[in-house]
Amino acid sequence: MIDCIFCKLISENKMMKVYEDEWTVAFMDIAKDVDGHILAIPKKHVKNILDCDEEILYKLMATIKKVSNHLVNNCGYDGVNLLNASGKSAGQSVSHFHIHIIPRKNNDCVDAWPKFDGAKRDTEMLWEKIKLV
Amino acid sequence: MIDCIFCKLISENKMMKVYEDEWTVAFMDIAKDVDGHILAIPKKHVKNILDCDEEILYKLMATIKKVSNHLVNNCGYDGVNLLNASGKSAGQSVSHFHIHIIPRKNNDCVDAWPKFDGAKRDTEMLWEKIKLV
Repeated sequence: MIDCIFCKLISENKMMKVYEDEWTVAFMDIAKDVDGHILAIPKKHVKNILDCDEEILYKLMATIKKVSNHLVNNCGYDGVNLLNASGKSAGQSVSHFHIHIIPRKNNDCVDAWPKFDGAKRDTEMLWEKIKLV
Repeated sequence: MIDCIFCKLISENKMMKVYEDEWTVAFMDIAKDVDGHILAIPKKHVKNILDCDEEILYKLMATIKKVSNHLVNNCGYDGVNLLNASGKSAGQSVSHFHIHIIPRKNNDCVDAWPKFDGAKRDTEMLWEKIKLV
């Protein structure tokens, strides 16, 4: 097995899942850097967009669209930021393709990445509110 | 015609194009906020990921993958950041779906968004180096 923290999370089923399908999973980031921080990843291990085949990329984007619409339509958010680092030079810390989804509210004063100011609300409580699974 | 700066750029064909196909175009951002800043957009006017149908989203991501691979494989970059704001609350300034591609090099000290430190190199010169069209 590849020594990858995200592959390990998937195989051990240890994450606060927000959405899951055959190809992808979206789950709460536990870094507590910003409220509602979600990571969307393909289940197959690919490093980033550079080595990801188009089919997996499309499945991942379909998941991101689904989660984003859910956050805005059903969870009281007004928008989202989508953020990705592909390559160590770009600040990629885990070498398994992941796209950050940051739910946004009007005047929430979140405006810098990757230097977020810290979460104000409990991650698990937010998870209970926004999960689709 | 919708009063949209990106629709206008497309109709007037006024941009430093990096890549173009039937559905999408990628072009140099002229804000001079960070070296090599590229915007990838669908030609059809959609506001952001929230109202974008999946087919357009896939075409846009295929373009982004193509441009990202080109930057790393052919233009001397080591990685990319992909950034999107969907909704005014998320910092979206132009209401036409766009994903930022920031080419990255090892130790380039680019690490915050949207507060970049300013470009060091001439945009048109970089464009000549990286365009695919």
